[in-house]
Amino acid sequence: MMSTRWTALLILAGGLGAFGQTQPQAPKPPAQAPSPVSPEVHPDRRVTFRLHAPGATKVAILDGNLSEFLSGPKEMTKGADGVWSITIGPMEPGIYDYGFSIGDSSRMPDPANRNLIRRTWGPTSYVEVPGDGPQFHTIRDVPHGAVTTHTYHSKTLNLVRQFRVYTPPGYQQGNATYPVLYLFHGGGGDETQWTTVGRADIILDNLIADGKAKPMVIVMPYGQMPARQGGNANDDYENELLGDVRPLVERLYRVKTDRANRAIAGLSMGSGQSLHIGLRHLDLFSYIAVFSGGGRNAGIEKLNAAELNKQLKAFYIGCGKSDFVFESANALDKQLTEKGIKHLYTVTGGGHTWANWRYYLNQYAPMLFQN
Amino acid sequence: MMSTRWTALLILAGGLGAFGQTQPQAPKPPAQAPSPVSPEVHPDRRVTFRLHAPGATKVAILDGNLSEFLSGPKEMTKGADGVWSITIGPMEPGIYDYGFSIGDSSRMPDPANRNLIRRTWGPTSYVEVPGDGPQFHTIRDVPHGAVTTHTYHSKTLNLVRQFRVYTPPGYQQGNATYPVLYLFHGGGGDETQWTTVGRADIILDNLIADGKAKPMVIVMPYGQMPARQGGNANDDYENELLGDVRPLVERLYRVKTDRANRAIAGLSMGSGQSLHIGLRHLDLFSYIAVFSGGGRNAGIEKLNAAELNKQLKAFYIGCGKSDFVFESANALDKQLTEKGIKHLYTVTGGGHTWANWRYYLNQYAPMLFQN
Repeated sequence: MMSTRWTALLILAGGLGAFGQTQPQAPKPPAQAPSPVSPEVHPDRRVTFRLHAPGATKVAILDGNLSEFLSGPKEMTKGADGVWSITIGPMEPGIYDYGFSIGDSSRMPDPANRNLIRRTWGPTSYVEVPGDGPQFHTIRDVPHGAVTTHTYHSKTLNLVRQFRVYTPPGYQQGNATYPVLYLFHGGGGDETQWTTVGRADIILDNLIADGKAKPMVIVMPYGQMPARQGGNANDDYENELLGDVRPLVERLYRVKTDRANRAIAGLSMGSGQSLHIGLRHLDLFSYIAVFSGGGRNAGIEKLNAAELNKQLKAFYIGCGKSDFVFESANALDKQLTEKGIKHLYTVTGGGHTWANWRYYLNQYAPMLFQN
Repeated sequence: MMSTRWTALLILAGGLGAFGQTQPQAPKPPAQAPSPVSPEVHPDRRVTFRLHAPGATKVAILDGNLSEFLSGPKEMTKGADGVWSITIGPMEPGIYDYGFSIGDSSRMPDPANRNLIRRTWGPTSYVEVPGDGPQFHTIRDVPHGAVTTHTYHSKTLNLVRQFRVYTPPGYQQGNATYPVLYLFHGGGGDETQWTTVGRADIILDNLIADGKAKPMVIVMPYGQMPARQGGNANDDYENELLGDVRPLVERLYRVKTDRANRAIAGLSMGSGQSLHIGLRHLDLFSYIAVFSGGGRNAGIEKLNAAELNKQLKAFYIGCGKSDFVFESANALDKQLTEKGIKHLYTVTGGGHTWANWRYYLNQYAPMLFQN
């Protein structure tokens, strides 16, 4: 039997296709081959993935780039109806990304699953496996903030780009001003990821409802920089962020503009951007976070420990033990420790995954703007 | 040679993957097979689609449900490098959705293309073919509005749902109140479609910049209704729209709340919803539009022509000649004409496609709120 909450999550996740639908005006055109239900999450937290491909000779399921529940490709089995399937698990509660390979193809999204992570090099699918109770990233019946997408012409880059902004519950009905967190995605990611698979909006809704985090605005820019002869991508991003994104945000939103009320954070490629820009602009930021990243090229050796300890209210590092950047994160931790620079280093299980990045955000956000 | 505008659009469309990227902290994990560039839009408006699938024996490209540039599946050709490809066109300037079938599989999105249309039954990819100059749906260097996603708990349906809201340029910096258009997607669609492949935000930005449409707020709800024993989906949607979405919008946004400043429109399944709710609530709406739909079950025969002609400032119908609902739209036009009910009927070429729906919105929006 499904509980109400579970049903509600299924609906948001796009499971309606399975219910059938009265569509008096719009019969569905016949071009599309039938898609089986996929993924199907069973009550015991096993998950069945299915793909209709009657003429294929080999179909496999692959982890997405940013999860690791499969540990390598797993071949699927063809049924008499031409539907290939595999059942995985039981799985830990969480959110997992995956794709299919047909005839050794590039990883394809699941055509029956509406939940997608966009990448600069294409999409992957994801599935949520619920726990016994709500997780910190589960949509609960609490007041919700909103997520706004802005399209703008970057003067720095002479390009059309987009960024997203989370505003906390109550923002639109009031006149208060809010502190602001700049939050960056990783390489190949884009401005949509933190509010799709990253659940930053839901995590903050929950933290705010529980009184654990201050209501804040979160700005999620697009961090990929065009390659430029002799250029440095981090410098270019600094110019873009401070010259285009920040002025626009401060014109459009009721955000506080003093350094005590501004934080910066990022994952992977974005952690390098966070560190690069944050350390060069203590005039602008009082909090810096590095999710799954190290300190190479960040100029740690030149930092003034006393000045940094005075200026930064939190300097956060998070990394997973099996992350391919774990050594680099350890080196950053060691370098900071040796220099006497105060920081927090959280080491988790797992690797370079959204499970970890959601966890770090849930840990970092409550540290911000508390006084 | 690429013009600046063309480059800008490519970047927004996610073409950055092809440029390579300096990622000091985040080497890309090796799991993913290489994706070739796809789609590649040539200067002569031919488009090459590519898919890496060395072990496949049959790969085809298919039209998405809502475009018709291929007229049926087209088999692709395998190269020595395991990359299947096909070149189509020259194509008319526009935005086209498509997918791949490998081994007679369900239609899969292009794994190398970041541009996606979400459906309740899964995603398809789309490609933009630019014209010689900007089209009405091309992103131009004009002031841009914003698109906000709200998550809410529907009391009517006891479900978590989302809707999107377009606010016009200047909304966030001012205190003005705005008229509001409720705009519905079709069967299998969702609240994201009008602001992805539908380009409603860009179309309005352009119309407003050119002085052709009044600045307005556009509300785009999620219109799929759960099946309910003995229930009527249009009635359920009416309760959801008027009982949950509208009160929330009017609490969160500076919108005018008199009937003169409220319009309703939808495509396909949404056109039935627009007609059903609009005609039953002349107390709330002064404008009704039906994109690719008919009037079956809408109770046209019971309408009072004099009352309707007095109350409605525009009653708009748009349909394509090869649309599978064309007969139904013609019947609605005939029925309204015979009853003496004033309306506008636009007949276009083509079928049940986003090319038409964007066109109808571009024609309908300037009629709204002009006095």
